[in-house]
Amino acid sequence: MILTLRDEKKEFDAPVSIEDIAKGISEGLGRAAICGMVDGKLVDLSYVVDHDADVRIITMHDEEAKRVYNHTCAHVLAQAVKAIFPTAKLAIGPAIENGFYYDFDFKTAPTADDLDKIEAEMKKIIKANLPMKREEVSREEALKLMGGFDETYKVELISDIPEGEAISLYRQGDFVDLCAGPHLKSTGIIKAFKLISITGAYWRGNEKNKMLTRIYGIAFDKKADLEAYLTKLEEAKKRDHNKLGRELGYFMTSDIIGQGLPLLMPKGAKIVQILQRFVEDEEERRGYMLTKTPYMAKSDLYKISGHWDHYRDKMFILGDPDDEQEAMALRPMTCPFQYQIYNNGLKSYRDLPVRFAETATLFRKEASGEMHGLIRVRQFTLADGHTICTADQIDSEFKRALEMSYYFLDCVGLREDVTFRFSKWDPNNTEKYINDPEAWEATQNMMRNILDNLGLKYVEADDEAAFYGPKLDVQAKNVHGKEDTIITIQIDFASAARFGMTYIDENGQKATPYIIHRSSIGCYERTLAMLIEKYAGAMPVWLSPVQAKVISLTERNVDAVKELTEKLQRAGVRAEMDIRNEKVQRKVRDAQVEKIPYMLVLGDRDIEKGVVSVRDGRAENSVTEMTADDFIALIRKKFDEKK
Amino acid sequence: MILTLRDEKKEFDAPVSIEDIAKGISEGLGRAAICGMVDGKLVDLSYVVDHDADVRIITMHDEEAKRVYNHTCAHVLAQAVKAIFPTAKLAIGPAIENGFYYDFDFKTAPTADDLDKIEAEMKKIIKANLPMKREEVSREEALKLMGGFDETYKVELISDIPEGEAISLYRQGDFVDLCAGPHLKSTGIIKAFKLISITGAYWRGNEKNKMLTRIYGIAFDKKADLEAYLTKLEEAKKRDHNKLGRELGYFMTSDIIGQGLPLLMPKGAKIVQILQRFVEDEEERRGYMLTKTPYMAKSDLYKISGHWDHYRDKMFILGDPDDEQEAMALRPMTCPFQYQIYNNGLKSYRDLPVRFAETATLFRKEASGEMHGLIRVRQFTLADGHTICTADQIDSEFKRALEMSYYFLDCVGLREDVTFRFSKWDPNNTEKYINDPEAWEATQNMMRNILDNLGLKYVEADDEAAFYGPKLDVQAKNVHGKEDTIITIQIDFASAARFGMTYIDENGQKATPYIIHRSSIGCYERTLAMLIEKYAGAMPVWLSPVQAKVISLTERNVDAVKELTEKLQRAGVRAEMDIRNEKVQRKVRDAQVEKIPYMLVLGDRDIEKGVVSVRDGRAENSVTEMTADDFIALIRKKFDEKK
Repeated sequence: MILTLRDEKKEFDAPVSIEDIAKGISEGLGRAAICGMVDGKLVDLSYVVDHDADVRIITMHDEEAKRVYNHTCAHVLAQAVKAIFPTAKLAIGPAIENGFYYDFDFKTAPTADDLDKIEAEMKKIIKANLPMKREEVSREEALKLMGGFDETYKVELISDIPEGEAISLYRQGDFVDLCAGPHLKSTGIIKAFKLISITGAYWRGNEKNKMLTRIYGIAFDKKADLEAYLTKLEEAKKRDHNKLGRELGYFMTSDIIGQGLPLLMPKGAKIVQILQRFVEDEEERRGYMLTKTPYMAKSDLYKISGHWDHYRDKMFILGDPDDEQEAMALRPMTCPFQYQIYNNGLKSYRDLPVRFAETATLFRKEASGEMHGLIRVRQFTLADGHTICTADQIDSEFKRALEMSYYFLDCVGLREDVTFRFSKWDPNNTEKYINDPEAWEATQNMMRNILDNLGLKYVEADDEAAFYGPKLDVQAKNVHGKEDTIITIQIDFASAARFGMTYIDENGQKATPYIIHRSSIGCYERTLAMLIEKYAGAMPVWLSPVQAKVISLTERNVDAVKELTEKLQRAGVRAEMDIRNEKVQRKVRDAQVEKIPYMLVLGDRDIEKGVVSVRDGRAENSVTEMTADDFIALIRKKFDEKK
Repeated sequence: MILTLRDEKKEFDAPVSIEDIAKGISEGLGRAAICGMVDGKLVDLSYVVDHDADVRIITMHDEEAKRVYNHTCAHVLAQAVKAIFPTAKLAIGPAIENGFYYDFDFKTAPTADDLDKIEAEMKKIIKANLPMKREEVSREEALKLMGGFDETYKVELISDIPEGEAISLYRQGDFVDLCAGPHLKSTGIIKAFKLISITGAYWRGNEKNKMLTRIYGIAFDKKADLEAYLTKLEEAKKRDHNKLGRELGYFMTSDIIGQGLPLLMPKGAKIVQILQRFVEDEEERRGYMLTKTPYMAKSDLYKISGHWDHYRDKMFILGDPDDEQEAMALRPMTCPFQYQIYNNGLKSYRDLPVRFAETATLFRKEASGEMHGLIRVRQFTLADGHTICTADQIDSEFKRALEMSYYFLDCVGLREDVTFRFSKWDPNNTEKYINDPEAWEATQNMMRNILDNLGLKYVEADDEAAFYGPKLDVQAKNVHGKEDTIITIQIDFASAARFGMTYIDENGQKATPYIIHRSSIGCYERTLAMLIEKYAGAMPVWLSPVQAKVISLTERNVDAVKELTEKLQRAGVRAEMDIRNEKVQRKVRDAQVEKIPYMLVLGDRDIEKGVVSVRDGRAENSVTEMTADDFIALIRKKFDEKK
């Protein structure tokens, strides 16, 4: 029997376990081995190889080991929960990117406080160093075992395993779970773990099913790594826009209004107003013409666009959806509305490209489990736009759109934080996409060429396209590591023909244009969330809703503070005053909590000298004396510098 | 028998007709008499007075005569239509403010072209000078007569006449109509009339009923007055925003999007953008804080606000309205959304007044017959806002809101065109209003006092209030004379308590605030419509979507035109260029058609001299040479001057 180990062939006389192969190579590898990979398939250390094969020994240096490590942690969690809550039923418990979770059906769900108790029980199980034993069983045996424990979810899972596939169980001590494996050799290998949260999750992710209780945990093979991760997590929590954005009075939500419908409070609305004006002006400068189109339309429009067939589940319908005459829907996209404006009046090739922009409110019926702060919402405001152009113009118009996005990302400081995704269709998903393989092939190649010519680094992703064409998605991660699209540029090969959009070409013939769908800065709500998290609420000066807090040193200085505040406001500085009868230190601290960039303290001496003491709220002990006019100039400079 | 005629008592021996009374006074009055008024009731000239009564002779100098005149015209129209279209059925044919109409149910509806034919027939009837004869009949006789003619609508009308009320017919020639009268003595009295339009109208104004054909006409007792009116009408048509606004490329509509959902094209969107920024900035300057709240909410919110009970018919519902959990609705008003923001955090009397503003998109399910251009639409953008204040602050906050509206009306030039309406509730309409008579009385008195103290001239109107309190409505008329509310300021006595809005007063006690609902410039779509009509599309320079067209004299000047256009744009002037190879006169004329305020022609001589020839597009032959910088200064001055 010949085994290939790291390109080296080795002969074995008899079947041999992965563990023994590792030990045979070196004692150290024997200790470090977590599991093995045989012909590309992960297996336990105890797995016995009995045929010619390609074998790899997996240690914690390998990504695969982390998943196995996390997966065993999930089983330990389940064992601990069953020990404390014997009536809890087990659903599923996989490893995930940064840890593991297990879903349970509790009679009475535990609270976050119970996690300590569960952790203590897990530590006992780890200390006991129980071996993880694999057993392959028949379907009948598996069903009998799990049925006997009244593990109804496991019974359902077993029934779904295709006929002929092996069914395996893993036992540690008196605990047994249905599992494909592999696992660590024994529970004692786990060095450091922590349960971090408890949430609800639907059985099989389907909101029609029962809501189960999901317990999340993380695990590391070094205690120091766990500590470092927990510190990072604490930091992330502090930056979480969904917490910080509320604390800073940027936004709020209301149960009687509904999920996914945040209310921007004055400070949040101010930031969006500043961004929106900046974006609209810059888009105009770059040749895009603003439109303002309605937020709803008859189903007729969406039937032509394809949204009715390909996107209806995500749309809010007004009236009876089956009543062809009456049914209307809130728009999930701006495109078909701007097409109507294009179709108003005959177009010639001389008119192209026609570039429309709109600050567009859009509505998408996100599932209730998916909504999150300002990032995933049911109503949002997109800096949207469509360029209608000839085939020859696609290249330059695509670049124009991308350059504009670069510019905005530079201005708000997100350019270094984004990655690019080239999103393609899935030929097997004909429900979701317009089924024209040739057009997809051609358009995807066209886009790939553009991206490659630009030297853009991107990943390709299947089944992430729009239903009418491929997309370049600008991706950003939130503090929790979740990735979302913030900007997208798309080439549409289908819509123009569907809407009868034409132009008269150089030869006097009717021709069908292409359409580029593009955002510039993305959706204001989501971008605001990303900015809050990036700057931990301390917005760049040009975006700060309040740029300066003018503070009186004593009661005597109140009039001077009022005067200065008004002077600053007249000069376009967003200034507020604090003339409370409090100590100046308290007033400065309060302004710092509000993340206000500058505190201007006015005392008798300042007034005498005709200056203000400007404290930089974002630097330690940085106080500069300057005149009011100098301060105004400083704020203006901050605005100009952003570009 | 004693009759009182203009405070003078006269004795008559025997019953006497109105006509004879008039002739008795003077031969001239006998000729001029149109009808009479007996104890406040209008009657025919042939009416015989047989008891002591107060009698007035009505001539064309009286408003009442015009209605009788118009009403007889409607009968003449009906007679003419029946002569030409014998199968047409008669519905109703009243006099209206500026003329008359008649609704018919045609087998095949006539077109506008057929109006000439009908007019010719009417002229014949007038020339024949047919006497108008009144007959009182029993219900049975009336039903038999109209049933015999198969006049099903008349039969329905007769059945609705309350038992005991007199039923009368009017005959002219072989035509007979069900009518309460009175009428002119004969058709020949009509001197001048014109049929002006043909539209659809639902039987009894109810869209569930059949759509009938309505023919509108106007009538005057002098030919010259008709001519003058027609000229005015032609002028109005030219100014009609629903025509002119489309021609100028400000807006369009789309059948597949739906009624009442206009699309603002780039030029219209630009005007709204300018106005919106101007309004938001000025509101901020005056102490209002911008919010941005969602456009939909669960029914829960509207149940608390009262909209679910008092306004549901006008709301767009999402999902099943009977499903308490799921039902949502698009918002018809911003109020309850801003209240949620008020309720975020405890408020003290020191925080009041809290003044919120929002550029708010609102949705109202207007009936299809009611929609009109940009004036009555299903989605609109209101400069909305709510001030939450103590009872003591109502007076000053109401004035603050009114002064702000004055300012905006001044800036756009509409101040002189508006009137004021004090809109009160109707105690009998408990469906529509919150039923708290004491609170209504108190709040209406409070508002009346404020209005009187301001010396405002206003009319009072019953049953025009909001359901939660009285309103001051700023009213404006469109070119067709139809009046609409463009701005409203309201005092709300009910909502704060409903939403549990409180503040801690000077004594540390919880107190309930008042709310002032206010717009500042009204709804942008409607205001844009009013401005188009006022200025016949020639917007004030600061609002013009294109302020300057830069025109090349010859091909040699194209580069200079490009350079100048860019210079102007960089300076914030909305400039476009026309470098077509056309005669300069043609290019100037085209710019004039677009209502662009300034045309800047550049020829060799201008370039040599370093000047531009600025033509004022709104003045005859007004060309001034100036430098580009002077022109930029001129445009800036126009912006500043508006205030």
